[in-house]
Amino acid sequence: MKLVECVPNYSEGRRKEVVEEIVKAIESVDGVKVIDWSMDADHNRSVVTCIAPPEKAVEAMLRGAEVAVKHIDLRHHQGEHPRLGAVDVVPFVPLMGVSMKDCVELAYEFGQKLWETLKVPVYFYAEAAKEPHKYRLPDIRKGEFEGLAEKMKDPKWHPDVGEPQPHPSAGATVTGARQFLIAYNVYLNTSDVKIAKKIAKAVRESSGGLKNVQAKGVFIEERGLAQVTMNILNFKKTPIPKVFELVKREALRYGVLPVESEIIGLVPLDALVGVFKYYLQAHGFKREQILDEMVYRTLLSSEEDDTK
Amino acid sequence: MKLVECVPNYSEGRRKEVVEEIVKAIESVDGVKVIDWSMDADHNRSVVTCIAPPEKAVEAMLRGAEVAVKHIDLRHHQGEHPRLGAVDVVPFVPLMGVSMKDCVELAYEFGQKLWETLKVPVYFYAEAAKEPHKYRLPDIRKGEFEGLAEKMKDPKWHPDVGEPQPHPSAGATVTGARQFLIAYNVYLNTSDVKIAKKIAKAVRESSGGLKNVQAKGVFIEERGLAQVTMNILNFKKTPIPKVFELVKREALRYGVLPVESEIIGLVPLDALVGVFKYYLQAHGFKREQILDEMVYRTLLSSEEDDTK
Repeated sequence: MKLVECVPNYSEGRRKEVVEEIVKAIESVDGVKVIDWSMDADHNRSVVTCIAPPEKAVEAMLRGAEVAVKHIDLRHHQGEHPRLGAVDVVPFVPLMGVSMKDCVELAYEFGQKLWETLKVPVYFYAEAAKEPHKYRLPDIRKGEFEGLAEKMKDPKWHPDVGEPQPHPSAGATVTGARQFLIAYNVYLNTSDVKIAKKIAKAVRESSGGLKNVQAKGVFIEERGLAQVTMNILNFKKTPIPKVFELVKREALRYGVLPVESEIIGLVPLDALVGVFKYYLQAHGFKREQILDEMVYRTLLSSEEDDTK
Repeated sequence: MKLVECVPNYSEGRRKEVVEEIVKAIESVDGVKVIDWSMDADHNRSVVTCIAPPEKAVEAMLRGAEVAVKHIDLRHHQGEHPRLGAVDVVPFVPLMGVSMKDCVELAYEFGQKLWETLKVPVYFYAEAAKEPHKYRLPDIRKGEFEGLAEKMKDPKWHPDVGEPQPHPSAGATVTGARQFLIAYNVYLNTSDVKIAKKIAKAVRESSGGLKNVQAKGVFIEERGLAQVTMNILNFKKTPIPKVFELVKREALRYGVLPVESEIIGLVPLDALVGVFKYYLQAHGFKREQILDEMVYRTLLSSEEDDTK
């Protein structure tokens, strides 16, 4: 079985009926399933997580985009989260039996068709980036929708597909391929956000910390605690335990300890396997030793037998 | 979906064709799948792991027993592992949507039918035990096949089903219900088996250690290392990290550290979730946050939709 994950982000976090229509459009493609979706009113943004056979993924993303472009007008859009377009970001993530290269190809196909059908100009980012300065999403998104028309005039920021002029209401779309991203936070036993900021600085790649880690220090009002909030961009190369242990070590410099850590959204099973191997020193442990995994595989293969 | 796990142990570890015939008989029941099986020549014993809908489990175990009783003659059986019968032990383990009580009922049904069809007397153990002295498998098995005729004369050791006289060639069968059992070993950075034995004594329930833990110290020839070899009988009440950390702590008393730990056979996903929560202090983490789990659930529910 081959599967990719698509995690499209749309610039709509307040009108539930619009997001539901997008979800419905995505699921109207046979074999494509939405496993999670959420909307955030402050950010005015929604994130849909779906799984699809690779040959159905592009069609599903196009149907979702069609609904989003119809209903979302960036000229009247406000929200805390930086954004460039109605269909803001569409990453393709390898899940089962699919390579990163396959996902890059899916992004290219989606970008091309999005321009052809809806006239939304497209940037390719992350593993699908055609130029190094377009690798990072924040760099592409800088200036946001409001600054886009001006930014696009610069040949350096011409879109990868389409004319160098934003779609009037839908702006531009960034699509690409990447590893599964883990959103990971560590709460500290202090309310002093300065300490969280110092730890974040020590931990993140951009200031000399761990590769594949983005981090910042924040204060979480409802718990009254400082938090190091992170993205782990490649958990295979930079596993969660390495990140957690470095946060703990840096916290100790200030007499502080982690109170709790949390995963926001989903985490791949392989990351749990990594944690198991790391802390229990179970160097030879294999995913195939997980009872439930073997049960699921058995059930799915017998379902396949039945339908042959 | 409802599923039980059955882990029948047969007193045959040398004739592959016999074990294969048993596996085939078990799988001849519609909906029953063997997910793992292994045989050990020294122990002269084989262990089959299968999953079954609860309403099919008893029939599958009866078909396996029929083959085993036909081919295995305990009067000519030698092996290191203690055993009482051809079909030595048949535990039923709750897996999905099934309670421990359901599994106890399955053991009772299997025991009754085994006696009726094959005239093998039956003991009920663990959660299915009818008397406290029959709770532990080693107590029932003490004296082995060779001492069984004599032992059965004692009213205390009358079988729970059938006449108090062993089947001539197949002895008796022990069946029951239990939690999933984790076979877990920790290698130490010493060849001194005495240290492993001291740690085992400190860790196991029977000598004042952790509840639900059986342990002994052994020397592993091929690695030249001492090992604490354990069974965790209830990983929900006594999770792996608690066991590992206590082994480590006791080892430190002798200036010794764990080199590696290993799971023999399978481990439930919930045990990995427990390890994740323990070491990362991820107190609020839910199994539903595992991407692969949600993918499998989605795939299985869509297969069900298709066949409706």
